[in-house]
Amino acid sequence: FFMAEAGDIAAWLPARQKFSHKGGHGHALLIAGSHGKVGAAVLAARGALKAGAGLLTVHVPQCGYSILQIAVPEAMASVDAHQLQFSTVPELGPYRAIGVGCGLGQGELASRALGELITKAQQPLVLDADALNLLSAEPSWLLQLPEGSVLTPHPKEFERLFGPSRDSFERLNRLREQAQRLGQVILLKGAHTAIACPDGTVWFNPTGNPALATGGSGDVLTGIITALMAQGLESWQGAVAGAYLHGLSADLAVAATESEESFAAGQVAEWLGRAFKAARAGGSPT
Amino acid sequence: FFMAEAGDIAAWLPARQKFSHKGGHGHALLIAGSHGKVGAAVLAARGALKAGAGLLTVHVPQCGYSILQIAVPEAMASVDAHQLQFSTVPELGPYRAIGVGCGLGQGELASRALGELITKAQQPLVLDADALNLLSAEPSWLLQLPEGSVLTPHPKEFERLFGPSRDSFERLNRLREQAQRLGQVILLKGAHTAIACPDGTVWFNPTGNPALATGGSGDVLTGIITALMAQGLESWQGAVAGAYLHGLSADLAVAATESEESFAAGQVAEWLGRAFKAARAGGSPT
Amino acid sequence: FFMAEAGDIAAWLPARQKFSHKGGHGHALLIAGSHGKVGAAVLAARGALKAGAGLLTVHVPQCGYSILQIAVPEAMASVDAHQLQFSTVPELGPYRAIGVGCGLGQGELASRALGELITKAQQPLVLDADALNLLSAEPSWLLQLPEGSVLTPHPKEFERLFGPSRDSFERLNRLREQAQRLGQVILLKGAHTAIACPDGTVWFNPTGNPALATGGSGDVLTGIITALMAQGLESWQGAVAGAYLHGLSADLAVAATESEESFAAGQVAEWLGRAFKAARAGGSPT
Amino acid sequence: FFMAEAGDIAAWLPARQKFSHKGGHGHALLIAGSHGKVGAAVLAARGALKAGAGLLTVHVPQCGYSILQIAVPEAMASVDAHQLQFSTVPELGPYRAIGVGCGLGQGELASRALGELITKAQQPLVLDADALNLLSAEPSWLLQLPEGSVLTPHPKEFERLFGPSRDSFERLNRLREQAQRLGQVILLKGAHTAIACPDGTVWFNPTGNPALATGGSGDVLTGIITALMAQGLESWQGAVAGAYLHGLSADLAVAATESEESFAAGQVAEWLGRAFKAARAGGSPT
Repeated sequence: FFMAEAGDIAAWLPARQKFSHKGGHGHALLIAGSHGKVGAAVLAARGALKAGAGLLTVHVPQCGYSILQIAVPEAMASVDAHQLQFSTVPELGPYRAIGVGCGLGQGELASRALGELITKAQQPLVLDADALNLLSAEPSWLLQLPEGSVLTPHPKEFERLFGPSRDSFERLNRLREQAQRLGQVILLKGAHTAIACPDGTVWFNPTGNPALATGGSGDVLTGIITALMAQGLESWQGAVAGAYLHGLSADLAVAATESEESFAAGQVAEWLGRAFKAARAGGSPT
Repeated sequence: FFMAEAGDIAAWLPARQKFSHKGGHGHALLIAGSHGKVGAAVLAARGALKAGAGLLTVHVPQCGYSILQIAVPEAMASVDAHQLQFSTVPELGPYRAIGVGCGLGQGELASRALGELITKAQQPLVLDADALNLLSAEPSWLLQLPEGSVLTPHPKEFERLFGPSRDSFERLNRLREQAQRLGQVILLKGAHTAIACPDGTVWFNPTGNPALATGGSGDVLTGIITALMAQGLESWQGAVAGAYLHGLSADLAVAATESEESFAAGQVAEWLGRAFKAARAGGSPT
Repeated sequence: FFMAEAGDIAAWLPARQKFSHKGGHGHALLIAGSHGKVGAAVLAARGALKAGAGLLTVHVPQCGYSILQIAVPEAMASVDAHQLQFSTVPELGPYRAIGVGCGLGQGELASRALGELITKAQQPLVLDADALNLLSAEPSWLLQLPEGSVLTPHPKEFERLFGPSRDSFERLNRLREQAQRLGQVILLKGAHTAIACPDGTVWFNPTGNPALATGGSGDVLTGIITALMAQGLESWQGAVAGAYLHGLSADLAVAATESEESFAAGQVAEWLGRAFKAARAGGSPT
Repeated sequence: FFMAEAGDIAAWLPARQKFSHKGGHGHALLIAGSHGKVGAAVLAARGALKAGAGLLTVHVPQCGYSILQIAVPEAMASVDAHQLQFSTVPELGPYRAIGVGCGLGQGELASRALGELITKAQQPLVLDADALNLLSAEPSWLLQLPEGSVLTPHPKEFERLFGPSRDSFERLNRLREQAQRLGQVILLKGAHTAIACPDGTVWFNPTGNPALATGGSGDVLTGIITALMAQGLESWQGAVAGAYLHGLSADLAVAATESEESFAAGQVAEWLGRAFKAARAGGSPT
């Protein structure tokens, strides 16, 4: 059991070389959004962009095309064949990490396409939200995930995936066991977000506050973790650092102009720069 | 008769538990917007988002779909069957409070759908703008509103609903009587916004300034009150606290960079974080 | 000949009463935009909104509908029957002042509709850009403008309307004569913007800098003047005060974070609040 | 060999005359964007706008029309006949400089249209990204470019155009030779961006940091250089000054609120005003 600290995060972040180029910071892919939930794709994209993905492509259904290009001009759009939901896995060659699930919906087409993605992907996946719900219905897929994947359930999604727990102690044990069984990283969201690694290690995240209990917050986290992994962090490092920076952004915002009520998920992205700086400076806000 | 004070507001706001999650802060629904007035839905959504709704869904006609998803990515969109106006009541199960009326238009379809909403809703409604105008034409609906609802008329809407008054004294009496008769909260907008409760209590709001006399200001207020009620405040508390925070946001903005002319309704949302902080700090701006 | 001063502007701005309401600050209409130039409608709308119009409606062709509602949610959209350009005069009853011409194009339909607008309007018009170019082709319309209208040509548009001048002295004389002949206010843009009134008075504007020589700058000015007139300023006061505040916004921006190159027209709207404050404070920036 | 300095940049920037007007600051055209990459057109447009283009037109395929008008209202849109890509050269008369290639795609239609543009253009072109890739496939066009053009390859694009180099020394020699051979300016991106002129001179750029190694960064640079040339700078001055200001913006942002990870390409535009000021003040950040 470890508690994440600013020093850890700072040590894991790859130093950017003077001679680096955008390709060197990784190309991240997000598969997100469905009719009525395209905002989730926007929020995940903003998280990935501000967490340092060198290149970012977002795969959205047709109803999300213009929305995404307006809201996040730095991202390229990959447009699905379907008007309303994810139905077709794009060419996966260029990507170093893939985040999937934010606002995806739970349609049959999306389920089939997720299954295909899991089969085809050579890169690690970050699975969130509806991708986890779809996985709950097809638990055999859990053992077919590409190596180095990360699951990011909140407690209800965790329960759907791995069954109920009597208390938080039992849930924590189950978290640890499942990460070992699957050989993947599992990030269990909560007041004390816990990240379990395949080797049995569990990290706790000390940052964050109740302002983050708001719609879209998880979407931004998925974007951040995917971007960190695209930059070369190990999956468990990406998950631990992502949770740390995500929470610290909210802490900084609430210490400045926002209240716990007024903080909106998209603001995590606005404060990420200061969170990176604070982590590098040892955790004290700049 | 009471004058709202920062201490009241602060006492009513639910303390966010470290272990809270987004569902715990309530799911708010806004039914708003029609062709040419989708901006009203955007403004109400921004108010609700920044007032702390844990989850937010906005029901808009098809012409509002992309607009809403671009402008407020944190909100989910529920899209009506009609291209131009509200015509169909969505599934109401998930919501703890429902705001209806901003930019809704006064079409026949919208009227019928509003009637259906009033019949079906088990949750409290916040009724504003065109919902009030439609109610004026169907006064029998006034007695069928779900318990704990809030009406937010400006003086002309109040007159349409409850008849003319000779002076502000008579209007205030009528406000009090009608709130008692209907058993609902009525918020009468004006320089001294007054909130009448079913038990005969009347609260006056001390915040706000003429900058708020601008198009869209009421839409943001509706969003704020709906979000506060979704978080568990009683209807009268939501109305009193909503008016207080709405006015205080404008006061803070005008004390900083805006003039009474330049202040735009959407800016209420930008300043809400500081208003919450100021209310908690006893009313003195931070 | 007068030089506009902060004290003049401050004296003309209507004091907002504590009991004012949005209708009391006037309803402004802008008729603007065509395919490829809808941004001009957005910029004019932002100018009008931030200059204090109580209510604002923007009439755009269909290709501008979503653009406007996303970019300026506080404005209501009136949508033309035509996909690409202004073709149909909307119902004019509700409006206290009407700005027309920004990005309007010079199509035949737009010309005919402008002629109809001039015939029907009882309210003062603010005529800019393509409305002036269309007027040049139909000079007889110049004598049919509603009382209290304002023309805002730049030097080339002025020349098209009223013929060439040998030098700036002759042009200034012509400006004065034409304002008297037409009985309307003419604002001639330039380094020293001059506003000529029907009674022969000419005001010079002391604010502004070369940062304003950028596309869209005039659109914002049209919005500002229209909004001031909707709030009850006389046409000449609206023109003089509008030019003053428009220029002062750019002066404040350039004194802060912008250079003359980097200043974009839309930023006038951002700085207008501080310009109003500075004008009230006697011209010294706050 | 020269190292660019703030004093050079400041000396080259045209002083804006009090009596200047928007036409006097040049009309820039950008031909950019294709389906899925319209964000590149938005970013280039923001760069051009904030670098001082007096007027700005952006030619986009139909799928980019609304996106551009919402995101950059100051720009006029020229809309291609094709839904998804560049296919038709617009009327080129009004423009003083033309930037082409950002997000253009490499379709056959785009290739043919680029060839036509090169043949027709009398103005200098700034060629970037996919325009360079298309040029690699049609190397004969390299000798038909209008006088005073600028090519802005990154190392891979440079290699595709001019063949591989064993090391950076050889590449620098090749850069110099090719600029002389073509009689055009070539800007080779990298940690030490180098600008080679037709006369054999090579400038190095001292500003910038790894934050710029992010998707869209080059698009903004293309917009900046095009705008500077539209304002009358010589091509080599535009390239040297553009690179300097582009890098300085990122330096200022990272010194303030952003980290190297969190800096997004669109933020270059936000910081350009301060970069111009700093360059004029001798390079020390304001």
